[in-house]
Amino acid sequence: MKTVIEYVLDRLHMLGINEVFGVAGDYAFPIEDAVCESKTLRWIGNCNELNAAYAADGYARIKGIAALSTTFGVGELSALNGLAGSYAEHLPVFHLVGMPASGVQKSHRLVHHTLGDGDFEVFYKMSQHLSCAHGILTPENCIDETERLIAAALKERRPVYMGFPSDYAVMPVMTKSQHEKRIPLKSDDQSLKAAVNAILDKLSVSQKACIIPGILSARLGCSDNVQAIIDKTGLPYATMFMDKGIVSESNPTYMGIYNGKLMNAQVGEFVESCDCILGIGAVLTDFNSGSFTASVSPEQRINILADHVKVGSAIYPNVVMKEVLEKLQTLAPSLQHKGIKAQGLGEPRKEANGQITAQYLYPRLEQMFKAQDIIVAETGTASMGLGFALLPKDAQFHNQTLWGSIGWATPAAFGAAIAAPNTRVILVTGEGSHQLTAQEISQFARFGLKPIVLVLNNDGYLIERLLCKEPEAYYNDLPQWNYAQLPAALGCDDWFCQTVTTCDELDAAIKQAEITDSAAYIEIVMDRYAASDLAKKLGKSVASLYSF
Amino acid sequence: MKTVIEYVLDRLHMLGINEVFGVAGDYAFPIEDAVCESKTLRWIGNCNELNAAYAADGYARIKGIAALSTTFGVGELSALNGLAGSYAEHLPVFHLVGMPASGVQKSHRLVHHTLGDGDFEVFYKMSQHLSCAHGILTPENCIDETERLIAAALKERRPVYMGFPSDYAVMPVMTKSQHEKRIPLKSDDQSLKAAVNAILDKLSVSQKACIIPGILSARLGCSDNVQAIIDKTGLPYATMFMDKGIVSESNPTYMGIYNGKLMNAQVGEFVESCDCILGIGAVLTDFNSGSFTASVSPEQRINILADHVKVGSAIYPNVVMKEVLEKLQTLAPSLQHKGIKAQGLGEPRKEANGQITAQYLYPRLEQMFKAQDIIVAETGTASMGLGFALLPKDAQFHNQTLWGSIGWATPAAFGAAIAAPNTRVILVTGEGSHQLTAQEISQFARFGLKPIVLVLNNDGYLIERLLCKEPEAYYNDLPQWNYAQLPAALGCDDWFCQTVTTCDELDAAIKQAEITDSAAYIEIVMDRYAASDLAKKLGKSVASLYSF
Repeated sequence: MKTVIEYVLDRLHMLGINEVFGVAGDYAFPIEDAVCESKTLRWIGNCNELNAAYAADGYARIKGIAALSTTFGVGELSALNGLAGSYAEHLPVFHLVGMPASGVQKSHRLVHHTLGDGDFEVFYKMSQHLSCAHGILTPENCIDETERLIAAALKERRPVYMGFPSDYAVMPVMTKSQHEKRIPLKSDDQSLKAAVNAILDKLSVSQKACIIPGILSARLGCSDNVQAIIDKTGLPYATMFMDKGIVSESNPTYMGIYNGKLMNAQVGEFVESCDCILGIGAVLTDFNSGSFTASVSPEQRINILADHVKVGSAIYPNVVMKEVLEKLQTLAPSLQHKGIKAQGLGEPRKEANGQITAQYLYPRLEQMFKAQDIIVAETGTASMGLGFALLPKDAQFHNQTLWGSIGWATPAAFGAAIAAPNTRVILVTGEGSHQLTAQEISQFARFGLKPIVLVLNNDGYLIERLLCKEPEAYYNDLPQWNYAQLPAALGCDDWFCQTVTTCDELDAAIKQAEITDSAAYIEIVMDRYAASDLAKKLGKSVASLYSF
Repeated sequence: MKTVIEYVLDRLHMLGINEVFGVAGDYAFPIEDAVCESKTLRWIGNCNELNAAYAADGYARIKGIAALSTTFGVGELSALNGLAGSYAEHLPVFHLVGMPASGVQKSHRLVHHTLGDGDFEVFYKMSQHLSCAHGILTPENCIDETERLIAAALKERRPVYMGFPSDYAVMPVMTKSQHEKRIPLKSDDQSLKAAVNAILDKLSVSQKACIIPGILSARLGCSDNVQAIIDKTGLPYATMFMDKGIVSESNPTYMGIYNGKLMNAQVGEFVESCDCILGIGAVLTDFNSGSFTASVSPEQRINILADHVKVGSAIYPNVVMKEVLEKLQTLAPSLQHKGIKAQGLGEPRKEANGQITAQYLYPRLEQMFKAQDIIVAETGTASMGLGFALLPKDAQFHNQTLWGSIGWATPAAFGAAIAAPNTRVILVTGEGSHQLTAQEISQFARFGLKPIVLVLNNDGYLIERLLCKEPEAYYNDLPQWNYAQLPAALGCDDWFCQTVTTCDELDAAIKQAEITDSAAYIEIVMDRYAASDLAKKLGKSVASLYSF
């Protein structure tokens, strides 16, 4: 008979999880022991729990699902910000928390990693705000609870919390009793028919339509359906910032990034002049809408969401996105409306003095990107510059637009590399963001992974200089690191590390990174105000960004 | 007229706060701007928010109070584990959180750093579990709320949460209206008299009494009162692990650390054979009680706590610790019971092969400690080894026994150094713990501070190897760093950095560190099982540590 933790780990493995991220801690020993004793799972020890949570987030972006284990109190709380990001951005991460033994809890003993008040529920309560479902596993409830929590994670694509009192974790599960088979997600037939008809009606009378695929369609495993609808309708499509790259950018009807009136004026004018804008899981957040400069009326819009559809002002509840999309694949008309052609960033432009400007950097990186690349771009001017690069076929672009927690990208890139060890992973981060979680660089080397890491050093938090009242305020400054020495100090002994300050040096370093057999870490020194266009425009639109 | 944030910062400065720790973020710009524009406060930008919270915790240990500022969502959640530690260990940290503007909140806008559901209260609710009081500041409530929150922080010596919607933060405060003067903390007269009499009665009939001062007495600003009572009564005293060094260890009646039956058998026998044990703010947690091996009956005990006193089985509520102690200073009898003499760690003992053992390391460090030193010891075998060293007069020893969050010590030492820039700060950490927060080393150099950093490298999480089922389990391993190269990579250009593997090298490096004008960072390579005695004994007592 399997123990509670063995049972849970087996079920997670059946869903596609091969690795568990985390930091070892005493109350979680039963979880860690079971992972290490398992023949199918691998323990990936991170430098700290926040980094572990970010790594799990990155892994889930590639594999669709991830697991994270932390110890009671100290461990789980450190991971919360990472889990909040996974919650905001719809990534199912199973958070396995090792708890003190049930008897210790019931007797309210004053043990370490507690607040000293005998309360063992407080952290569990806090985590409930950041998980779509939660439970404490016991031998009696293990089978049912595991199924319930898995179902919730897969439906909502958000984290779930699983607490394991250390004594319960190693007890055998009780056999299945009245456990009912869970019914797979299904639409209400009537509502599904009505929703699909409303969409088809609106499409059929449209003179000018386009599609806006959103990140939720990818999270719910519907990317292929979206692509099929694009092919079937022949409609032009654009994506918003958060949704970049979830469908191919090399398709002929792709128009580029729609960012309200801030960027890509042509795309904005086209989208906003359509009489039918078919959104598929797209959401108008601040950074998705060009600081709320997007103006689209409800009458223009269709939006297919996880469990409902909006057509104009009407809402059709209880319909599952995948079923709606499957119907549309078959029934949608071939419209072949003509869009505009997506523009890349063009040729890198050098200044006379050879310094690395945004006008050189981002076009040069665009040239570097290859099919299949996994590009992880940190929040800030780095992601804002890369957001408008045109991606090769099957290249993936990951950023954290909604949650926007700086420091995310470095461990998330590590998680992505663990999930796809044979794929090229390119991490692009500002140096300020990098400082939050830089120690995780050591994990790439430990696990034999070979990323290309690009650290943009512009002497401070550049995006904040652009957004705050006094750009030169002291709080935008950073300690000065010798970045190119960092990988060696962190045990990445054979990495190609270099600091570049001119376009020619950057060009040569990228070429070297691409042919070397080791990982690469390039510090790119730029002017302290060398910002991407979007970052500069955001700086000029703080009123619409922050007020109401 | 002052703005809301100016008013709050002024009040905090009046309480002794000169620095605000944090990481800049857009919703917190008004807070950061006000700190930088203030003539009395300094902004200390940390590498990440958890490190900032730990630094504030370290600062509060030295100055009695601290302030931390983070931005909405991403920032505040990252800091939670650090704040939980301050809560558990009674350190008042004012957590100033920058929030989106009130209009953005009221209209539930989908902005960055939210979960995407328009809920702006969720993080505030989570933080309430880890703060003794909390409030959202507005121009109308600013004066009253600030006084209420300060009173709570000073009474409970725990964190408080202050949220600042960014528009409110920069509005002028409304003038004081019905704001009542807060009455200073006062005991109930009757109860105070009864409690003091009960204590005096018990002391006067005692044949063998001792004192156990606890950390709470220091946190409540009563260290001098405790010392006066020790002097007046002439009673022998011991401290428990968490309480180490809160009163002088060089006083002739000091007996050493009381750790149940795990360590210091003589001290344990003495304490447990007393008919009167006068605790002053001491708590029997797992690590304080030698894994619950302490056995003291209620009849033997007096305990003076923050707001009540226990004598035997009787409880006297509504009495303030300081007032009780002030009475005892005057009224307590001179008993002059004879205790035992505190033992230090003795001479460092070298093995024939010259390798650095625990039997060499900890006695050598004891020899190194000087009057006034601030020693910050990380959770794990490092603090367990140093806990039994005898401290010179006025040396301070800080550890995080109850919360026990590894990674705490490095940023906490930084916070302590900011609080006491002219005092020698010695950080002793295991390399596993150091990896969680190592980037904060860069801040010492940035602010011109010169700590001595000792990193004990025993190739993994040693305390976990001792406590878990299979010591060699993979999850106890770490990426291998080149520690001595780390400070240079982090911009600490002129530091004395060295790796030592023998006793003689260690001795020479310590001597060098003590005469050099720069900071020092010494990696001490030890055998993977070179643990302090307490750590080994804990490993053998897991049953009493983890079960009930």
